[in-house]
Amino acid sequence: SRYEYVKQFELSDTLLPGCWIVIRIDGRGFTRYSQEHGFAKPNDSRALDLMNTCALDVMKEIPDIVFAYGVSDEYSFVIRKTSTLYQRRASKLVSTIVSYFAACYVMNWDTHIRSVKMRYPPAFDGRAVCYPTDEILRDYLCWRQVDCHINNQYNTCFWTLVGSGKSKTEAQNILKGTLSDFKNELLFKDFGINYNSLPAMFRKGSCVYRKRVEEVVMKKKEEKKEEKKEEEEEEEEEKEEEKEGKEEKEEEEEKEKEKEEEDRKGEEVIRCKFKLVVTHEDIIKDKFWKENANILKR
Amino acid sequence: SRYEYVKQFELSDTLLPGCWIVIRIDGRGFTRYSQEHGFAKPNDSRALDLMNTCALDVMKEIPDIVFAYGVSDEYSFVIRKTSTLYQRRASKLVSTIVSYFAACYVMNWDTHIRSVKMRYPPAFDGRAVCYPTDEILRDYLCWRQVDCHINNQYNTCFWTLVGSGKSKTEAQNILKGTLSDFKNELLFKDFGINYNSLPAMFRKGSCVYRKRVEEVVMKKKEEKKEEKKEEEEEEEEEKEEEKEGKEEKEEEEEKEKEKEEEDRKGEEVIRCKFKLVVTHEDIIKDKFWKENANILKR
Amino acid sequence: SRYEYVKQFELSDTLLPGCWIVIRIDGRGFTRYSQEHGFAKPNDSRALDLMNTCALDVMKEIPDIVFAYGVSDEYSFVIRKTSTLYQRRASKLVSTIVSYFAACYVMNWDTHIRSVKMRYPPAFDGRAVCYPTDEILRDYLCWRQVDCHINNQYNTCFWTLVGSGKSKTEAQNILKGTLSDFKNELLFKDFGINYNSLPAMFRKGSCVYRKRVEEVVMKKKEEKKEEKKEEEEEEEEEKEEEKEGKEEKEEEEEKEKEKEEEDRKGEEVIRCKFKLVVTHEDIIKDKFWKENANILKR
Amino acid sequence: SRYEYVKQFELSDTLLPGCWIVIRIDGRGFTRYSQEHGFAKPNDSRALDLMNTCALDVMKEIPDIVFAYGVSDEYSFVIRKTSTLYQRRASKLVSTIVSYFAACYVMNWDTHIRSVKMRYPPAFDGRAVCYPTDEILRDYLCWRQVDCHINNQYNTCFWTLVGSGKSKTEAQNILKGTLSDFKNELLFKDFGINYNSLPAMFRKGSCVYRKRVEEVVMKKKEEKKEEKKEEEEEEEEEKEEEKEGKEEKEEEEEKEKEKEEEDRKGEEVIRCKFKLVVTHEDIIKDKFWKENANILKR
Ligand SMILES: Nc1nc2c(ncn2[C@H]2C[C@H](O)[C@@H](COP(=O)(O)OP(=O)(O)OP(=O)(O)O)O2)c(=O)[nH]1
Ligand SMILES: Nc1nc2c(ncn2[C@H]2C[C@H](O)[C@@H](COP(=O)(O)OP(=O)(O)OP(=O)(O)O)O2)c(=O)[nH]1
Ligand SMILES: Nc1nc2c(ncn2[C@H]2C[C@H](O)[C@@H](COP(=O)(O)OP(=O)(O)OP(=O)(O)O)O2)c(=O)[nH]1
Ligand SMILES: Nc1nc2c(ncn2[C@H]2C[C@H](O)[C@@H](COP(=O)(O)OP(=O)(O)OP(=O)(O)O)O2)c(=O)[nH]1
Ligand SMILES: O=P(O)(O)OP(=O)(O)OP(=O)(O)O
Ligand SMILES: O=P(O)(O)OP(=O)(O)OP(=O)(O)O
Ligand SMILES: O=P(O)(O)OP(=O)(O)OP(=O)(O)O
Ligand SMILES: O=P(O)(O)OP(=O)(O)OP(=O)(O)O
Ligand SMILES: [Mg+2]
Ligand SMILES: [Mg+2]
Ligand SMILES: [Mg+2]
Ligand SMILES: [Mg+2]
Ligand SMILES: [Mg+2]
Ligand SMILES: [Mg+2]
Ligand SMILES: [Mg+2]
Ligand SMILES: [Mg+2]
Ligand SMILES: [Mg+2]
Ligand SMILES: [Mg+2]
Ligand SMILES: [Mg+2]
Ligand SMILES: [Mg+2]
Repeated sequence: SRYEYVKQFELSDTLLPGCWIVIRIDGRGFTRYSQEHGFAKPNDSRALDLMNTCALDVMKEIPDIVFAYGVSDEYSFVIRKTSTLYQRRASKLVSTIVSYFAACYVMNWDTHIRSVKMRYPPAFDGRAVCYPTDEILRDYLCWRQVDCHINNQYNTCFWTLVGSGKSKTEAQNILKGTLSDFKNELLFKDFGINYNSLPAMFRKGSCVYRKRVEEVVMKKKEEKKEEKKEEEEEEEEEKEEEKEGKEEKEEEEEKEKEKEEEDRKGEEVIRCKFKLVVTHEDIIKDKFWKENANILKR
Repeated sequence: SRYEYVKQFELSDTLLPGCWIVIRIDGRGFTRYSQEHGFAKPNDSRALDLMNTCALDVMKEIPDIVFAYGVSDEYSFVIRKTSTLYQRRASKLVSTIVSYFAACYVMNWDTHIRSVKMRYPPAFDGRAVCYPTDEILRDYLCWRQVDCHINNQYNTCFWTLVGSGKSKTEAQNILKGTLSDFKNELLFKDFGINYNSLPAMFRKGSCVYRKRVEEVVMKKKEEKKEEKKEEEEEEEEEKEEEKEGKEEKEEEEEKEKEKEEEDRKGEEVIRCKFKLVVTHEDIIKDKFWKENANILKR
Repeated sequence: SRYEYVKQFELSDTLLPGCWIVIRIDGRGFTRYSQEHGFAKPNDSRALDLMNTCALDVMKEIPDIVFAYGVSDEYSFVIRKTSTLYQRRASKLVSTIVSYFAACYVMNWDTHIRSVKMRYPPAFDGRAVCYPTDEILRDYLCWRQVDCHINNQYNTCFWTLVGSGKSKTEAQNILKGTLSDFKNELLFKDFGINYNSLPAMFRKGSCVYRKRVEEVVMKKKEEKKEEKKEEEEEEEEEKEEEKEGKEEKEEEEEKEKEKEEEDRKGEEVIRCKFKLVVTHEDIIKDKFWKENANILKR
Repeated sequence: SRYEYVKQFELSDTLLPGCWIVIRIDGRGFTRYSQEHGFAKPNDSRALDLMNTCALDVMKEIPDIVFAYGVSDEYSFVIRKTSTLYQRRASKLVSTIVSYFAACYVMNWDTHIRSVKMRYPPAFDGRAVCYPTDEILRDYLCWRQVDCHINNQYNTCFWTLVGSGKSKTEAQNILKGTLSDFKNELLFKDFGINYNSLPAMFRKGSCVYRKRVEEVVMKKKEEKKEEKKEEEEEEEEEKEEEKEGKEEKEEEEEKEKEKEEEDRKGEEVIRCKFKLVVTHEDIIKDKFWKENANILKR
């Protein structure tokens, strides 16, 4: 039609190739949202679990996301640097992820927050940020995890003080300008709380990623054939494991191992898989990135 | 923390001041989504009503949106040109609107689509486009409504042919390269369908905006005082009216009229209000824009 | 070659269609540059003339520029809103104009600044700004001309005071916080200077545009044929006129008039032409824009 | 003034931190420009030397440029990845470099192109491109040098054929679709030209960078003190040397060496300096980057 010229006003918003793309989303007005829905203070396990479930849903839907980190009402999704998803168009990436997350939040609400009905739908803002190197990407994730630690330590002290009878202003004044060590000691001496024994999810936030695991399987030749089909249907086992956090499995065959298998039958076989897991662990030190070198290699 | 430098990688995405901002969202993979949920072909009134309800929710939440136009799995939200919402940051505007829309979609599903449970959460892409003048903005809306017409006419013919026993390929071949008149005649001569008598929502799409209406009210002085309070609480009447479409009311006091009222009591008073309405009407010709001059004046 | 992928890192920088584009350039470090070359303070006519000559050169080279405004070490070039020059790519527009201007500056130096040899080459920064409507574009030009006035009035007072024996600090203190009227009176009472009688170029800055002029011409049929050829060769008369400023002519045939001419021969003919002129006049009030309605119509 | 709001229409164009910034400029319409000024075909040493002189001028002016590569009518300037020059604003970087280059081109013309006066000023387009890693930056430079090779080999064949009496169309047809080896052999067999013995500047393009050189100096204690002052004034020796190309010196003290010196007097001292040089060498293989590791380390 003669109106098609208006399409030209859509300007390109391609993100620089070769960079990690982080899509960070954050609940809009969640100060009120958590109050209206009676979230426990300062951390509501159910609310955080709900966030993590949505992040898992997003990662299952968008395979170019290699890592996600969540804390409070926010989640950061890391898209691999070579991704050409939506031709790296910023608004496509942000909008698809953020809207799917929001839809999942409503959909998963009832399984997590049983006591209260959702009173009104949530919104999330979202943004795309490019990080040119692995180092800077890791610094980004450190920034979020350090932020998680600082906020959680403060909030834990604050609400413990308030719970002990202090007014909010008194609690604020007690904590104003204090250092990390002071806060730890306050919790321990005055309230017998060992900060490090608090739930890892509160202290470390949540990581979602595909973890390489080895599995011993007994096989016959016929089984193997069937199994391949199943894998093509992208079967995902939904049992949860307990380690540092909860895990959800996603099976991805490792090509080399598979070849070896083909020579045998009815034998014990070690298979490498990548299970989608949710953990609550340190991502600042090198240890995590050495153990999960596959994440940044993709 | 020493990691805060990573914040600098967030680049500005401010939209040009002085322009109309259109946020257009579009269902991701709704070809499959409508199949999986058994949407009627080519138009499912319930699905379209659901979209319209979500658009209404968005407009109640974001007052800077002055007009919205929806068709199929898409909705365009027009933000007034002087808006400084989120400092006109593109990703903030897009993400907030699109995620809220998606959350509303899930939340409102059951009241609209009663036969089927939602099988998986929807996602929507979203983009921000600037239009420098009223004329070009109107051309944008024409573009969408012309598109609605062309697609709907084609789809109506296509599914009518298929319904009459033709294969999809046959239907496609019959319609290939035909003009608008041919399609109208095909519907009328072969199937007795008068295209113009089909539901306006299918032919024209859906408009959401605040319509100026006059209301005759009987008042006493005391009532007026109370009423002011109510209005401050932004009461919204939720009854629906039937005209060209369904309407939802939103009360906005008109300042001048109010002054006149203060001189009277216990009298008939004509009050101007702006009711949020959903209509299905022509927005290509001048008529609409003359009758609703308030929309572009804001 | 296998390296061609690096081309993808060039991101689009298209400017919004339908908007006026202003390319503003500004001398880099011209505080020092004018000192090193002994420019008269606060205004050096030769230096300003040089700037104007370069602006004329730019406008002859880039026909999509419809207006230019210069003051001090800066020049703003207005590109018509429908232009598709370089597909509206910001960096192409900025770089081409700014580099050509700089090259002209060096090339034209000797004809303007005869006393001093250029000691080092100048650089200019440049930027592209979009303005969605005629009104806002005019406000932009007002902004520059008001700035010209404020700076020039201040500088005139400052250097007059310094010339009269005051130290720079004394002059600064005398002027600090004073209003426009005070400055005018200071010049008049203490120094007998009528601000409004100072050169218009200093007070108003410089405008470059194509001015519609009527010319009475005697014609024979044969002459007309020849003349057409000449016009195709884009002949430009280089004589300067004196009115409010200096003018340079550029002939552009007016189509309608031309047709009338074809019916006559050997008669007096009034021809409309557009001459490229440099003037120093008010562009804040409507008068200018009414008299030169052609500028914004293009 | 009330017009200042127009400043808000200037949108941010910050380049992503942490990336190499390449500013590539390219002569506008140099096909015609080189004809009008009688440049030798396909390569005019004087014209290329002029380009190199301007690139040197740019690098002396903008110290954040660590490397420049030129070929034909284009030059690429590499700005170090940690630079905050002009807060990494794209248009500031591009416009300043391109306008200064253009001004230098005019200024340096007479010393290089003695036979012809400049007939009209040149313009250059310019753009900014970000490259996230050293590898991709090197691939960018490879891209330009491979392009140089391909074009130069083709042009050398083309103009040799034309010089030997072939028409341009004939020459084109002979070369159409031929590979590199064929072209080399054509030059050698038919014209006795050993491609590799052609000037390196034509075959490899031009590199400008600061090269680490060691210099043996005789010193007395007093001299050393004086010399320090001089260095602070950033003295630059302007003599040219002959090696692979022409060189220009720029002295930068190496801190460690300096300390050793302080223990001696009146002795032979080896000093490390960085001389700004123009060379014509391979930058595709690792060798260059190993020998000049300082370039990418900055
Ligand atoms: N009670 C409770 N509150 C939480 C929990 N997680 C997050 N919140 C609240 C605490 C904060 O007020 C808020 C997150 O801070 P934000 O800076 O994102 O502020 P908010 O979302 O209100 O505003 P925004 O729209 O993001 O600018 O959400 C939780 O588990 N329990
Ligand atoms: N049956 C049915 N289908 C509908 C209705 N409204 C929209 N759809 C379907 C028809 C189209 O296949 C699809 C909208 O076309 P799109 O171009 O947006 O394609 P789709 O969403 O599949 O892909 P996308 O992710 O937007 O690129 O949604 C409806 O009321 N009934
Ligand atoms: N003496 C003299 N100076 C002039 C004349 N025109 C401009 N200038 C000087 C006065 C100002 O110091 C300078 C223009 O101010 P700017 O704000 O552009 O500063 P400058 O160019 O030094 O720095 P910049 O690189 O633009 O940030 O140029 C003139 O005609 N005569
Ligand atoms: N004769 C001669 N021509 C040269 C020399 N160096 C460059 N040129 C010419 C050859 C090409 O026609 C032209 C460079 O090609 P471009 O692709 O940059 O084209 P041009 O500058 O004409 O157009 P543009 O404005 O860049 O799109 O400059 C030289 O040393 N001698
Ligand atoms: O939202 P905040 O305050 O945590 O900080 P921010 O997200 O960087 O600010 P904004 O949401 O305005 O981008
Ligand atoms: O999605 P389409 O095909 O209607 O057209 P588009 O939305 O302009 O394309 P894209 O979604 O890729 O921007
Ligand atoms: O250069 P100024 O100070 O006149 O103001 P500006 O040009 O808006 O600042 P910048 O050159 O840094 O964009
Ligand atoms: O100018 P070309 O043809 O060498 O290729 P380009 O520079 O990438 O094209 P453009 O100048 O249009 O960006
Ligand atoms: Mg925020
Ligand atoms: Mg929030
Ligand atoms: Mg938050
Ligand atoms: Mg689309
Ligand atoms: Mg869709
Ligand atoms: Mg659609
Ligand atoms: Mg400036
Ligand atoms: Mg300046
Ligand atoms: Mg200036
Ligand atoms: Mg080019
Ligand atoms: Mg060129
Ligand atoms: Mg070129």
